[in-house]
Order: sequence, then C-alpha cells, then structure tokens
Amino acid sequence: MKEIQIGLIGLGTVGCGLVKVLEDNREILQERLGAPLRLKRVVDVDLERPRPVSLPKEMLSTQVEDILADEEIGIVVELIGGMEPAKTFLLESMKRGKHVVTANKALLAVHGSELFAVAREQKVSIAFEGAVGGGIPLIRSLREGLIANRIGHIYGILNGTANYILTRMAREGTTFAKALKEAQAQGIAEADPRLDVEGVDAAHKIAVLSSLAYCCEIDFDQIHIEGISRIDPSDIQFAKDFGYQIKLLAISRSDGERIEVRVHPTMIPREHMLAKVEGAYNAVHISGDAVGDVMFYGLGAGMMPTGSAVVSDLLDLGRDLLAGRGVRMSPLACEGKAMAQRKIKPMDELVINYYFRFSAVDRPGVLSKISGILGSHDISIASVIQKGRQVKGSVPLVMMTHEARERDVRLALAEIDELKVVTAPTRLIRVENSESVQDF
Amino acid sequence: MKEIQIGLIGLGTVGCGLVKVLEDNREILQERLGAPLRLKRVVDVDLERPRPVSLPKEMLSTQVEDILADEEIGIVVELIGGMEPAKTFLLESMKRGKHVVTANKALLAVHGSELFAVAREQKVSIAFEGAVGGGIPLIRSLREGLIANRIGHIYGILNGTANYILTRMAREGTTFAKALKEAQAQGIAEADPRLDVEGVDAAHKIAVLSSLAYCCEIDFDQIHIEGISRIDPSDIQFAKDFGYQIKLLAISRSDGERIEVRVHPTMIPREHMLAKVEGAYNAVHISGDAVGDVMFYGLGAGMMPTGSAVVSDLLDLGRDLLAGRGVRMSPLACEGKAMAQRKIKPMDELVINYYFRFSAVDRPGVLSKISGILGSHDISIASVIQKGRQVKGSVPLVMMTHEARERDVRLALAEIDELKVVTAPTRLIRVENSESVQDF
Repeated sequence: MKEIQIGLIGLGTVGCGLVKVLEDNREILQERLGAPLRLKRVVDVDLERPRPVSLPKEMLSTQVEDILADEEIGIVVELIGGMEPAKTFLLESMKRGKHVVTANKALLAVHGSELFAVAREQKVSIAFEGAVGGGIPLIRSLREGLIANRIGHIYGILNGTANYILTRMAREGTTFAKALKEAQAQGIAEADPRLDVEGVDAAHKIAVLSSLAYCCEIDFDQIHIEGISRIDPSDIQFAKDFGYQIKLLAISRSDGERIEVRVHPTMIPREHMLAKVEGAYNAVHISGDAVGDVMFYGLGAGMMPTGSAVVSDLLDLGRDLLAGRGVRMSPLACEGKAMAQRKIKPMDELVINYYFRFSAVDRPGVLSKISGILGSHDISIASVIQKGRQVKGSVPLVMMTHEARERDVRLALAEIDELKVVTAPTRLIRVENSESVQDF
Repeated sequence: MKEIQIGLIGLGTVGCGLVKVLEDNREILQERLGAPLRLKRVVDVDLERPRPVSLPKEMLSTQVEDILADEEIGIVVELIGGMEPAKTFLLESMKRGKHVVTANKALLAVHGSELFAVAREQKVSIAFEGAVGGGIPLIRSLREGLIANRIGHIYGILNGTANYILTRMAREGTTFAKALKEAQAQGIAEADPRLDVEGVDAAHKIAVLSSLAYCCEIDFDQIHIEGISRIDPSDIQFAKDFGYQIKLLAISRSDGERIEVRVHPTMIPREHMLAKVEGAYNAVHISGDAVGDVMFYGLGAGMMPTGSAVVSDLLDLGRDLLAGRGVRMSPLACEGKAMAQRKIKPMDELVINYYFRFSAVDRPGVLSKISGILGSHDISIASVIQKGRQVKGSVPLVMMTHEARERDVRLALAEIDELKVVTAPTRLIRVENSESVQDF
C-alpha cells in the first residue's frame, strides 16, 4: 500500500501536538485517507530538550537537508514559527517540488504573497489551516465553504490570551496588570506577552483571513493595531452601564472597493454572540451576502487543537498525492485574474461610534468646554455619564458619540487634551454598533 | 474556456436561491473557479408558479430526461426534497455518470447508505453541504476540517423554527401554541409545522452528521425523537430557576463502541454557548479529542443560505471536473475498511440527569410517596422546588435528579402516574450537565 511520507521541521509545542495526533489517531486517519500517514523525519535544532512525545532516534535530525533531499517525502510541515529560517525552509521545500504545510501566521501575514507566488510557480500546494483559530476549520470555511459569498465583514476574537485577560477583568473588576499576571501564572500568557496583548498576533491572523476573504494582497504595515494594555477597569464598568462588552476585535470589512483592516479594543452590544465568548476561546463572526451571519468558535491555539488543524491539511494533501493529482486550488482559491490590489482604507477615514473617557477637574463649565470642541469637529454626543468620586480633584466623564470620522476625533481629542482642566490623556474605545452586529 | 454545465431539478425556494447566488455572484464565482459555472437546464413540474427569479424560457423544462440525456451536463442538483421521485432522479443521474448535489436531509437520513453505495460504484461524487445547517459549512468541517479527531459528541440546535418558538416562549412567557402562531405569522413556521416542532427534521440532520462523524450507517428508525409541543411555560421558568435554558437538541455521542443518537428538549446550563443561540439561528457544538470544543453558528435554512451551500458544492465538484479528475473522496470520507456498523444505544440504557414536573394534590405525604418510589428505582433527587398557587387543588412539584438510568425513570414515572394524588402525567426533560458541556 502506498503511504504518504512527511517531514517535520520544528518539534516545539505544535510539532509535538502533530506527532501526538498522528500517533493517537493512527487507525482512524488511515481509514479516512485510505493509506498510512507516515512521519518519516523530524528536524529540530535542539534534540535534547524534554518533550511530551518520544520518537525513535533514527527519525530525528538537526539538518533540514535530510528532509529536503529525501525524495520519498512528499509533504514538509514547517512549525518553527517566525520569519527566518522558516521562510527559507518553506521556499526551498517548494522549489524541490514538495507540498508544504505551515501554521506560521506571522510569516504568511508579512510574506504571504511571495510564498503563494512560489507555490503557483512550482505547482505545489501550501496549506495553512493551523495559522488562524487553532483547530477551528476557518481557512477551509472561508476558502471553500463560504466561497459563493461576497464577504461583508469579519469580526474576530483571534487571541485567546487577550480574551482571557479581558474576561477576568470583566468578571473580577481587576486591573490589566493583575489579570495578566494571573494569565501568566496559568500558562495562558507568555513571559513576554506583547505580541498577544498588543494586538500584533491578532493582526497577523486578520491579515491572512482578509486575503482569503477578498482574494487580495494585504499590506501588513497598513493595518491599524492597538492592544488592550491601556484598558482600565472603569472602562469595562462603563461599557456594562451602556450595555456593551469590551473585546479585542480584529476587524476586516469591505465597502465593495476599499477594505478596512484593523485591530483594537472594541465595545460590542452585550447581546451579540461575540460578546459571550469568554476565557481563552476564539471566535470569528463573518457576514456573507448569501449566507448571512455565521460564527465559528473554539480554542484558538494550543498543542492539540493546532495539531488537529495541521493533520487536516496533511489528509487533504495526502488525497491529492495518492491520486497522483496536482494542486487542487491555488493558495487563496482565486484562479481567475490575478489577485486584486485592494486598497486599505486609511484609519482617518473610518466612520464609527466612539466611547471617550475624559479625566477633567470637577468644575463648572468643563462639560460645556469639551462638548463645544467636539461639536466644532462635527462630533455629536449620544449620551454622557459623569459619576464616581473625585480623585485628586478629577472625576471621570464618559461619553458615547454618534457616528463620527476618526480624523475629526483625533483632532478634537488633541485639542481637548491641551485644556488646562483636563488632567490626563483622553481614552478612546471604538464601538461596533451597526446593524450588521445584530443577529436577532 | 471550458465551462461547468449544471442541471437543476426543482425550482422551489432553495432552487431559486441557487439561481440567485449564481447570478448575483457570477463574476467572483468565475474568478474563484477559473471557469464559468453555467446553469444549462432547470426542470420543475410547475413552470407557471410566480417565483423570485426569472429564467429564459429555453432553459426550462418539465422533463428530467432533458437533463439526464444531456452529456454536457456534468453536475445535477436535486432540490425537490422528500423521498420520491428525488431518490430515483439522484440514482439515475449517478448511473449516467453525473456528479450530484442535494440538500435533501430526509432522503440522506433514510436512504443515505444506498445513495452513497451507488456513488462509489459509479465513481461519482455526491455532495450535500446544504442538507444540514443551511449555509454553515458543517459537512465540510466534519468531513475535512475536523477529520483528525475522534468525535466525542455533537450537540445541535438544528431546527430554526423550534428554536425561534422556544426563544419567544422564554422571552415572553407565552405558551407553545401562541409562539407557534407568531412564528407562522412571521413565515418562520410552516402551515403544517410538525416536522419542525416534533423533532423529525432535526433527527434527519443529526443522522447525517452522525454518519459523517462516526463513519458509519445510522438506522434512522432507532433514533429517539421528541419535540417541543408539550413544553409548558412553567418548565421554562423552572429551568431558569435552576440555572438552565431549554433547547431542542439533536445529540450524538460516542462511548467508543456504541453511539447515542437522540432528539429531545434538553436543559443546558445558561452559561453554555448553545444556551445563547436565539431566534431562528442554528448552532452545532462538537467535541473532538484533539480540537477540544468547537461551535458553528448561523442561519440553518432559507433560500440564500442554502443556496450558498449548494454553490460551494458546485465549485468543489467543478474543480475536479476541470482537472479531469475523478472523485476526490468517498461520500463520508471513509476510504479504508467498509463503513463500521455502529450500534445505537437503546434509550433505556441512557444515563443522564432528569427534570420532573409532577402534578399532585397539595396534601401532606405526597412528596414522601413520590420520592419513595423514585428511591426504590435507584433515582436520587438533587433538588426540589415546590411553589406557586394551587390550581384546582394541585401544585407543581419540580425535581432535578442526579444521574439516573432512563429505564428506571420510565418505570418509576409509570408507577407515580398511577397514584391517586397525581392529577396529570408527569413531565420529564433531560438535562445535559456533563463536564463536556462546560467550556470555561
């Protein structure tokens, strides 16, 4: 019986997950595919580190060339992460005619176009289900399941660490710093949590989803990225008072011509399904012109969930290899004219509702001064809350606006923060409030 | 340029949805596929009925043979529903070497094995993404995305009409009859709502999902089916008091050997994601050994969502046809040994928590009598509520049990309902309370 031979580069957490899924479910995988999936060689720079899986010595190597030069190996899995040498290994594998599987969202977000171009040239497949949303079959769903749709928007809770921290803050009223420490103690946040809490990881993922949804290249540097480290417990409490939850959303939206791609803390109505996603879970809410609103939910990271996604790619490519077939579809499933160059809308042109929290001295005339400046910039106020005690002569003053233009908001807040009565920079949180957020 | 030619049998609601998606998104579909999708012929018994789409006269026919005999037509879509003549048309199409697409869950649930066997013999594909969950890519996700997993359970809210009625009952405290009328007025429930509210439609769908998840045949007649028409507003209120929501769940669960497949009203913890699914939305919660818990959510029916699913199948098959490829995978993606004959566990052996609502006269000793009978059948009580006013000398007495065996429950309730102090049959609702229901 023919077998599918696999080379794995990178035996870290996800690599071990892959090994474990292949071992635990060997029998059902063979039944499903109709042939064995055989992990032939595993390469890592450090073979001594303790790991949750054990592999026979002869399978291990520190030399990537041992995989690249092996003509029996039809699929190379890259699970080392980061830019280099991951990129070189993927390019080299494809140039030697091997299909590749990766879960490297950072690399795909920044160098996806180059990798996809080489895959097309070399007539090999590049699969990346594990790059976004762990084991949730998001890539497949966008690329195949929802392919008949014009995608209106994608709203994603794409970073489990950030969502865990926000959930703890909302439940316990704790500060960001304290919730982060708890997450680190639980192993949910890394020692250096910046990629997760500052929104960069979520931006990598929304870049990948956007290029699939809109069949286009995304210039990663044009994505507006804002994390959750400046969210104050009072913001979460005020959000509740207004009927909202704060989530770190990765957003992508098309107006038919240009697309918005942005990551920032967002207030969403408490009744929305995304508002109910708690802890380390991820969820992605997608609207399509035919399908309406759909949502996908699950663990967005981790050894086994991501292992599940990588193995699903292996079975997919295995089917093509067994049948002696070539590439089933191009990486982004756009087979027609070349990829569209969709412009990303500059943040300054964004029109949305805003939440402002001002720190101002408690003195008559302050509200009138602030609202005067807002008015002069075409920003109209929907509601105001002023409550709580003075802290060193300041009280929080909180407002929700009607739809306003980001540029106007930026200029107005700059002016307001210059006022003598304003004691600290104004905090701003964007509010997704549009019809499309309402499901029922 | 080569084009993919399609024949459509059945121009009802979903048929019109298919026509509309193909028209509205013609350009992006061609880009995605790399070739045009051309609807060549549409057959319906009634060509005069007013419809939301208009087609050129020469495309229409009342004779299925006009599609079957056309050698250019590579894919036949069956959207008439029901058993016959749908089954004959599908079988005949496959025998003439055509790939087929259907959204006919009833037919697949009852005659799936026969259809799948013919597809294998004839080396054609049978695709059915539209059969379950409207446009939510559920079939693909189970068959490909989650393929690396042993599936533990599937909990599905698979009927939008039933969920809409339960949502209205929970929100407004109305009766089933009143909520049903409202749903009919809104066009959400049909004039004859039995298939929807009595659980049969959900059972068709869980049968299809179960055969995919467990790679096996399901004997439809062995599925326990119970609808929502006997749910009383008081049950919904008591559920709230205990911290639960009542949903019509279609459940499938494997213990490694046998599987449970059942449809019935179910109390689920209020915090569970499924408890938050409201209105006509569907959702399916799946646990896999590698992926953990995932959930899929969206509109489970309707012209456009189901049209979206059917077109996704057309693109899939279109890719294979363009490349001159044969069948990519067998209908249930089990390529190894023949389909397992998984036994369905008899309901009598089910072990679960129960909610009972007794109607008993308000007299000393009644509680002791009832709990005595439960105890003699090994059913132990977790909590009791007795409240509200007497109605003709009766008060509702409500209990939650610890885990008990269905057979014991059946025998105990038969005995209790014979008591003179019991004035109406006891109502029973099963409670899904296991670890696996808890996400966070």
